[in-house]
Amino acid sequence: MSRAHEWVPADPDFAARVRASFARQAVMATLGIGLEEVQAGRVVLTMRHRQDLTQQHGFLHAGVVSTALDSACGYAAFSLMPAQAGVLTIEFKVNLLAPARGPDFRIEAEVTKAGRSISVVDGRALEVGAAGSRLVATMTATLMTVLGRPDVQH
Amino acid sequence: MSRAHEWVPADPDFAARVRASFARQAVMATLGIGLEEVQAGRVVLTMRHRQDLTQQHGFLHAGVVSTALDSACGYAAFSLMPAQAGVLTIEFKVNLLAPARGPDFRIEAEVTKAGRSISVVDGRALEVGAAGSRLVATMTATLMTVLGRPDVQH
Amino acid sequence: MSRAHEWVPADPDFAARVRASFARQAVMATLGIGLEEVQAGRVVLTMRHRQDLTQQHGFLHAGVVSTALDSACGYAAFSLMPAQAGVLTIEFKVNLLAPARGPDFRIEAEVTKAGRSISVVDGRALEVGAAGSRLVATMTATLMTVLGRPDVQH
Amino acid sequence: MSRAHEWVPADPDFAARVRASFARQAVMATLGIGLEEVQAGRVVLTMRHRQDLTQQHGFLHAGVVSTALDSACGYAAFSLMPAQAGVLTIEFKVNLLAPARGPDFRIEAEVTKAGRSISVVDGRALEVGAAGSRLVATMTATLMTVLGRPDVQH
Repeated sequence: MSRAHEWVPADPDFAARVRASFARQAVMATLGIGLEEVQAGRVVLTMRHRQDLTQQHGFLHAGVVSTALDSACGYAAFSLMPAQAGVLTIEFKVNLLAPARGPDFRIEAEVTKAGRSISVVDGRALEVGAAGSRLVATMTATLMTVLGRPDVQH
Repeated sequence: MSRAHEWVPADPDFAARVRASFARQAVMATLGIGLEEVQAGRVVLTMRHRQDLTQQHGFLHAGVVSTALDSACGYAAFSLMPAQAGVLTIEFKVNLLAPARGPDFRIEAEVTKAGRSISVVDGRALEVGAAGSRLVATMTATLMTVLGRPDVQH
Repeated sequence: MSRAHEWVPADPDFAARVRASFARQAVMATLGIGLEEVQAGRVVLTMRHRQDLTQQHGFLHAGVVSTALDSACGYAAFSLMPAQAGVLTIEFKVNLLAPARGPDFRIEAEVTKAGRSISVVDGRALEVGAAGSRLVATMTATLMTVLGRPDVQH
Repeated sequence: MSRAHEWVPADPDFAARVRASFARQAVMATLGIGLEEVQAGRVVLTMRHRQDLTQQHGFLHAGVVSTALDSACGYAAFSLMPAQAGVLTIEFKVNLLAPARGPDFRIEAEVTKAGRSISVVDGRALEVGAAGSRLVATMTATLMTVLGRPDVQH
């Protein structure tokens, strides 16, 4: 993914902050989703096809792909927020372009707009196999910078 | 949820067909999502808050809620399709209205349009606790009736 | 549309405030969209099929239907906001369910969530003709309550 | 906008077919939207801010921006379809990133997936002024290739 924009982070320690928060998302370990790369305004996650995460035709369930996309988009937005902010997803939309066969998946998210309160992030999930990589899903997510709410603090 | 419409199923054995397909979605068992109710054009699922499915603030991850909503919407559409059809999700959009604390969740989906090839389903996820129930998320999903493709057959 | 919820407006003069703001949306007059009904958390607009607003098959263009849906959703949210607030649409999603033939259209919007800063509204567009009414499109819109910004003040 | 993909059109006369269909969308002339550029899988439209198309704060109404985005996405998909096909929009989602002040707008759409029946197109609307260009809205649209339906034929 070529960079659409060079973002300037509000917090120079953004990468450590993203990694610490990602580690607290228990569902990431449960689903085998790993944090591969953190840049200002950009995050890459990885995961593998697993039989216990499939839908009725043996593909990875769209909800599982969306879980990875949502975290990728959320942390891409979070990387540009002030140090004391929390992040909440307001909404997201997913288009499913091809069956998620795998065996490997790469989930990329990049900030499209970083506003004071509202951020918009675009993500895409690629399956990576012997034959190369293929786009299986895209997401657009809208997120909110949350300040002063103890229950959603960083 | 009051019924918006009385749908007439193309296949009188729709409920057994939905239950059999749901049982093949391995991720439903992995996430503890159960099939509570099947009617023509309407499906209700249930699940519980689980620590290993949380995001960084201890709420159920939005992707997990979306996984349940996507299956509920998919099977609501599938219940109205011909016996030999497969169902594929084209896209969905989720609005997250409140933190998903639980402890219990009820996920309801009901068909808004059942076309020959395209169906649109609206779903909602409620948390159910001692204080009553509260809407935590809504989904609109677009699904396709698939005929003649062996890899996505019923 | 049966009321899903009884909303309590923050501003008792909400109806006059909605009507005044609607009158300032010049595009409503240009497209022939009228404000039929204002309640707390609910707005109904009407419009007619017009040849100069069509797409290539002679149906009302989806963007014109969306313009009416967006205003209906925006004013449904606005009706519940404080007197000094402005409203901005963050995003919306439209499903097009049937060709918009008309000749008359009724656009209904009702608030699903009214948060302090974020509101979610669901809308639907019906065509009304000799044969009765038919759902042609649905919208889910996310809106923001804006305070202290002179350029988007009421 | 750099090309994400080199698409191969099914119909070598795609540009003339797009231009002819665009000319039949009466609403384009009504709103002053012009067809600037047609490539295989890519369309650019232009329009100007007009007082009679504004919302309550004097910005171009989000629905008008969406009308241009929907046509741009539709014709980008249509450019890759067989000569006898019609195109219908199934759904779209718009994120509004900044007030649409203008004075000029450039609307770009590019196909992300061109399937046999379902296409997905991403669009963006930029305002262009003395200070340069700025992204004001993005759209993801899902479209269907329609064959054998006289009412939506090319």
